[in-house]
Amino acid sequence: MPDRQRADAVRNYARILAVAEDEVATHGAGASLEQIARTAGVGSATVRRHFPTRRALLEAVSRKRIDALCGRARDLADTADSRDALLTWMDDVVAYCVSARGLAAALAYDGAEPESVHENSCSAALENAGDPLLGRAVEDGAVPAGVTVSDLIALAVGVVLATEHHPDPADRADRLFRLAVAGLSPRPAAG
Amino acid sequence: MPDRQRADAVRNYARILAVAEDEVATHGAGASLEQIARTAGVGSATVRRHFPTRRALLEAVSRKRIDALCGRARDLADTADSRDALLTWMDDVVAYCVSARGLAAALAYDGAEPESVHENSCSAALENAGDPLLGRAVEDGAVPAGVTVSDLIALAVGVVLATEHHPDPADRADRLFRLAVAGLSPRPAAG
Repeated sequence: MPDRQRADAVRNYARILAVAEDEVATHGAGASLEQIARTAGVGSATVRRHFPTRRALLEAVSRKRIDALCGRARDLADTADSRDALLTWMDDVVAYCVSARGLAAALAYDGAEPESVHENSCSAALENAGDPLLGRAVEDGAVPAGVTVSDLIALAVGVVLATEHHPDPADRADRLFRLAVAGLSPRPAAG
Repeated sequence: MPDRQRADAVRNYARILAVAEDEVATHGAGASLEQIARTAGVGSATVRRHFPTRRALLEAVSRKRIDALCGRARDLADTADSRDALLTWMDDVVAYCVSARGLAAALAYDGAEPESVHENSCSAALENAGDPLLGRAVEDGAVPAGVTVSDLIALAVGVVLATEHHPDPADRADRLFRLAVAGLSPRPAAG
């Protein structure tokens, strides 16, 4: 591709992405692809070429937040208390998902597509970032062995999706996640 | 209203509801009101008169399942182990939400509308049904005081919404709910 054509394509993508970010911020995960195309002044086919699926759109829109959460996990790696480090990070995951409409929906696609797609997904990036935090917490006995980062993220996503119509979603999601951390009925089952 | 007109209205509502049930079963909580009107052979305005909001539609479609879950709670009231009774009921709530698209979405509206609307809602019916089960479990020390049926249902709804794209949503939702019951990190936080 000639340089000028390539530069046009990059600008085009950046404009569509900026419009998509606005639309998802306003209308949530169900934002209209047609509206994005109209506002960006391109055809629907162009939008679909950049974002072949709704998941691809939501992942692109959420990418900056995911990168920030991955950075946050690295920053917390040196926190002395491994349980604090993990739970602080999970609080951030919940808070980001509450404030970024579309991020929870993007993460809810985890497991829905073949491994090859998953490798580059938002969920995969978050899982890789959270793995060392979880590993330390499990090693210290603060989290039962067998729990995965994917489990933690799915629960975070769940409390966010379940509370999006609530008058105070941040507070409600936070309460529910804390209950899941403490356990609804932590007494070990008999037998 | 004359008897014949009333009978017509009842038949009309029953037909629209049956079509709505099919559409929500096929397309989930986002089912098209226009498609429901077309299939039922009525105008969109008629559908909107019966179901003024999406929540109203999802509640009507979910009513039989909610009634069944309320009956289940009454049946479990005499189970000797109060923790077993509550958790068995919650397993049913999770399983019903997984299999009935639209039920989890209907329940996610909890708290989104004024108390007067909430009183007759699916969530209110479930909360009333679950209250005695939770009360016994709290009394027996199996569930921390302060946890509400609304919390339990919101967590159940959350794990269902977070796993709806998963290849095996029933199994995944079940695992996540069990983790929330056991606690992700049940060690009490230091003072």
